[in-house]
Amino acid sequence: MGISLGANQYGKAENRVVRVYRDTDRHEIVDLNVSTSLRGDFADAHVTGDQADVLPTDTQKNTAFAYAKKHGVTSPEDYAIALGRRFLEASPKASSAQIRVEQYAWDRIPVGANGSDHAFVRRGGAVRTTVVTVAGRGADEQVWVVSGLQDLVLLKSTGSEFKGFLEDEYTTLAETDDRILATSLVARWRYDSATGVDWNKSHDAISASLLETFATTYSHALQETLYLMGRRVLETNDAVAEIRFSAPNKHHFLVDLSPFGLENHNEVFVAADRPYGLIEATVTRDDAPPAGDAWLAVPSFL
Amino acid sequence: MGISLGANQYGKAENRVVRVYRDTDRHEIVDLNVSTSLRGDFADAHVTGDQADVLPTDTQKNTAFAYAKKHGVTSPEDYAIALGRRFLEASPKASSAQIRVEQYAWDRIPVGANGSDHAFVRRGGAVRTTVVTVAGRGADEQVWVVSGLQDLVLLKSTGSEFKGFLEDEYTTLAETDDRILATSLVARWRYDSATGVDWNKSHDAISASLLETFATTYSHALQETLYLMGRRVLETNDAVAEIRFSAPNKHHFLVDLSPFGLENHNEVFVAADRPYGLIEATVTRDDAPPAGDAWLAVPSFL
Amino acid sequence: MGISLGANQYGKAENRVVRVYRDTDRHEIVDLNVSTSLRGDFADAHVTGDQADVLPTDTQKNTAFAYAKKHGVTSPEDYAIALGRRFLEASPKASSAQIRVEQYAWDRIPVGANGSDHAFVRRGGAVRTTVVTVAGRGADEQVWVVSGLQDLVLLKSTGSEFKGFLEDEYTTLAETDDRILATSLVARWRYDSATGVDWNKSHDAISASLLETFATTYSHALQETLYLMGRRVLETNDAVAEIRFSAPNKHHFLVDLSPFGLENHNEVFVAADRPYGLIEATVTRDDAPPAGDAWLAVPSFL
Amino acid sequence: MGISLGANQYGKAENRVVRVYRDTDRHEIVDLNVSTSLRGDFADAHVTGDQADVLPTDTQKNTAFAYAKKHGVTSPEDYAIALGRRFLEASPKASSAQIRVEQYAWDRIPVGANGSDHAFVRRGGAVRTTVVTVAGRGADEQVWVVSGLQDLVLLKSTGSEFKGFLEDEYTTLAETDDRILATSLVARWRYDSATGVDWNKSHDAISASLLETFATTYSHALQETLYLMGRRVLETNDAVAEIRFSAPNKHHFLVDLSPFGLENHNEVFVAADRPYGLIEATVTRDDAPPAGDAWLAVPSFL
Repeated sequence: MGISLGANQYGKAENRVVRVYRDTDRHEIVDLNVSTSLRGDFADAHVTGDQADVLPTDTQKNTAFAYAKKHGVTSPEDYAIALGRRFLEASPKASSAQIRVEQYAWDRIPVGANGSDHAFVRRGGAVRTTVVTVAGRGADEQVWVVSGLQDLVLLKSTGSEFKGFLEDEYTTLAETDDRILATSLVARWRYDSATGVDWNKSHDAISASLLETFATTYSHALQETLYLMGRRVLETNDAVAEIRFSAPNKHHFLVDLSPFGLENHNEVFVAADRPYGLIEATVTRDDAPPAGDAWLAVPSFL
Repeated sequence: MGISLGANQYGKAENRVVRVYRDTDRHEIVDLNVSTSLRGDFADAHVTGDQADVLPTDTQKNTAFAYAKKHGVTSPEDYAIALGRRFLEASPKASSAQIRVEQYAWDRIPVGANGSDHAFVRRGGAVRTTVVTVAGRGADEQVWVVSGLQDLVLLKSTGSEFKGFLEDEYTTLAETDDRILATSLVARWRYDSATGVDWNKSHDAISASLLETFATTYSHALQETLYLMGRRVLETNDAVAEIRFSAPNKHHFLVDLSPFGLENHNEVFVAADRPYGLIEATVTRDDAPPAGDAWLAVPSFL
Repeated sequence: MGISLGANQYGKAENRVVRVYRDTDRHEIVDLNVSTSLRGDFADAHVTGDQADVLPTDTQKNTAFAYAKKHGVTSPEDYAIALGRRFLEASPKASSAQIRVEQYAWDRIPVGANGSDHAFVRRGGAVRTTVVTVAGRGADEQVWVVSGLQDLVLLKSTGSEFKGFLEDEYTTLAETDDRILATSLVARWRYDSATGVDWNKSHDAISASLLETFATTYSHALQETLYLMGRRVLETNDAVAEIRFSAPNKHHFLVDLSPFGLENHNEVFVAADRPYGLIEATVTRDDAPPAGDAWLAVPSFL
Repeated sequence: MGISLGANQYGKAENRVVRVYRDTDRHEIVDLNVSTSLRGDFADAHVTGDQADVLPTDTQKNTAFAYAKKHGVTSPEDYAIALGRRFLEASPKASSAQIRVEQYAWDRIPVGANGSDHAFVRRGGAVRTTVVTVAGRGADEQVWVVSGLQDLVLLKSTGSEFKGFLEDEYTTLAETDDRILATSLVARWRYDSATGVDWNKSHDAISASLLETFATTYSHALQETLYLMGRRVLETNDAVAEIRFSAPNKHHFLVDLSPFGLENHNEVFVAADRPYGLIEATVTRDDAPPAGDAWLAVPSFL
């Protein structure tokens, strides 16, 4: 009976790279969490224990920090593409490299008309993400960019219903015409190309589109709302081929105050932790290029 | 040999109370995490197992939700005072009640000139807190209010040094004239009275004062910066008797890029997780009224 | 330009189901975290907002609890298979159902010769997992079972080297003949069939095999150790078609005590948090049946 | 108006010190999380920014690692006392030092009759803790030792009631004669002396006493159970002056299966996250020596 090594990858996860731009007195700060992975022909490292083809994860870490200076970080996408290319250059046996980046936003502390030059407060809220996969070298190079955001917590206090659903003998849920709808959204969108995109501008436009659609559309269900959000992103952003969502339905249950002689017209809710509905969906442009390795090893349904 | 029951308290922790104000189409949302504790003569419950004097934690939970409607939540402080009084009314054996509240901020989703009427995005960043202790009833009533904020993550990319420190045989740290200073601040301030304070206005003023002082003062050490922040709060907010800080020094270590032929003029840092410096300090007005039970059971050094 | 709904699924995540068997005075406790997902033709729910085909996540939750009584929980695998079948029965538009279970282990509190009949202490350590996917109905039914464990934290204080690796201009790592090797293992193995397996016995045998191999083999790298562990599992457990690992290299760095005049012969280490190496690998039986949907939506590389 | 610096302390938190004893082939591993704090006259550091009296937190870190070799770690208590003394020796302006230690337990991987010599699996479950405070030097030295455990998760599937409690207009809870009682216990006990105690033996005896009492006594309420546990510890461990508990009541709610035609005789429960009852209590020996600074800055009610 034969036993073989199957799919594998290795790298350095969660390098907390902080890059300060300080060419003038007005500093800029870029705060990243960078993970790198190499895939390829690393059978020897596993089967015989020979590490001759292995670029150590420690070296991957060093490169991530060095490139924050050498290449710079104008956007997580641009930085990740450069890093992916470098790893294919440095590691002959690697067939592809995947770079995953989370970016934490900071605001200038409000001082004077324009805010402080060098003092910042972390914004909190949504985290910007990108997953870049580079496969091949030179003329054979392919680059996939999947960007997104996570921890975007949204809530509507009205304009949401849930009714007309399938019933069986385990049904106890009542229909509702008016409820709180809330989620902590993870969204990831695949760009149809790794060139010709203004990554920062595109990120801002897509984020705004997601927020605005959530705010301005009536919701028959979280599924419908996600679909509408995805559709709007594709309609207004030509560079996006596909968008995926993972959205926990953060239940806010109406509290029964009638035992205490109080009415509760959708005014007092308990925010529940577990269990939660989990809605995951993809919206795709029909003429999208093939996804290739873009989603390989991206966590969860996404 | 005698064995006795000593200090004790009990209550319901982390009630996730969400209150929506929807008297007009323009909704307001108040998102709270509420914990309650009663102290007093509850020896029977412990020693004989007799629960006749115990107002169950389930009832405390019900009351927290009912009061979000009956009393309302104009501020966490006002709501907590009402809740504390109610528990002393309902529980004859209780000598005091402590109500702890965290408030999560939400912003209107930007739509049109004034933002959405009923769709919100969670702000992230600092959490507003209050710890209210009510002792006694009627003419004997005493109320202490300790408000604050937590998870306020601040960073200065220059204007911070650390040198001239004590050395011994375990010293390896080099002096520095220019470093990143960063912390995730917990601040709690004790008001000198539970009446006559505009809680929301005061919270905003103190928060702004903390931020501005951090941004505009040179730092010889995190200790000095905290002291300056506390001093400024006391100087500009008459209602504050005392302020306490717990501030992890979130180290950002300069990365040595010289092995790679690169210079690093305070441009590339690694943000470290553990260990971290932990600086805790109190700044007090000399004529502050006694703290009484204000800080009893408030976690950590705070 | 056309825009379409792509892959999607929905369900109820993290139902904390606790089942007590108390037919005699000697109780048994089964402590589960259960997540369910349905996939199929749910376009209407997304595109038109019509929920007529949607079995609500609330109903999925009710079913998970009801089945803990009606079907019982002899093993997470058996329970999950029953639940998956039920959802296909109840939801005509679903083409498949995935049930994910984590099981937390409890020990009897040691009292007398056999431990307490009804008092338990949570064991901690590794969590047992299963992901069951049921597709189709009746004669067309296919069932995939992927079981595993997570949070299995292992450490070797010697018998581990790392040397002979690829070097480039970003290399600073020194070779080592003796280091601490530690990981927090996630392992998932795919059974080649959903019938004829004693799930509990098989779980115990595979867990023991993983531990023993880690303990008794010399390590040239974490990659090699994972491969050896996987190989041993396949060699000694006929029912396993494939095994996948995700293994953070939990770095323990030797502390330089020489500035203090102390030698450190691999005696004092600092356990680091981030970054960490992340090694992921698959070991497969060459004649394994196709994986089908077994791994669909299983998180991370796994 | 005068403003002054009040109580303050500073140190290095969460040093992850791992000490391997490898004098023979049979290794021992001690896995610690060590936090240190100094208190004393550090006004200059805060008020003028002069750091001349400040032993940097970096040096405290170095000392913690160096002492793991130089002094060794036979028990967390013994190691912490040595470290506290060292800091008072090194820092003339410090009046006291507090050392907080968490210890994570590891088991040998079962191989052969006695388990592996150098391969370990982390046990999980309860974490051993100690908080040692050293004040003064030489003849004036005082040492307080508060040891304990945390994350001890206990559950009784029967033998627990809750009834006869106080009712008011917000009461909805039904009485029960039989319920699940579960908690994640934090216990801390103060030793009456820092000398003459076998720290490891004492820790084991107290832990066993807590477990056994939980298992073998009927519970009228969690309050009563904690009191009984504390009383038993004091009765059987002469060296303990006082014990404090913080015990979340981890609610397991009976699931109503009647809508599905199923009976539920305390067989199926949902384990809830929030809110939870939180019971905190102290049991003291009447002739206990004064606590002094023993509990200063120990978190929460404890």
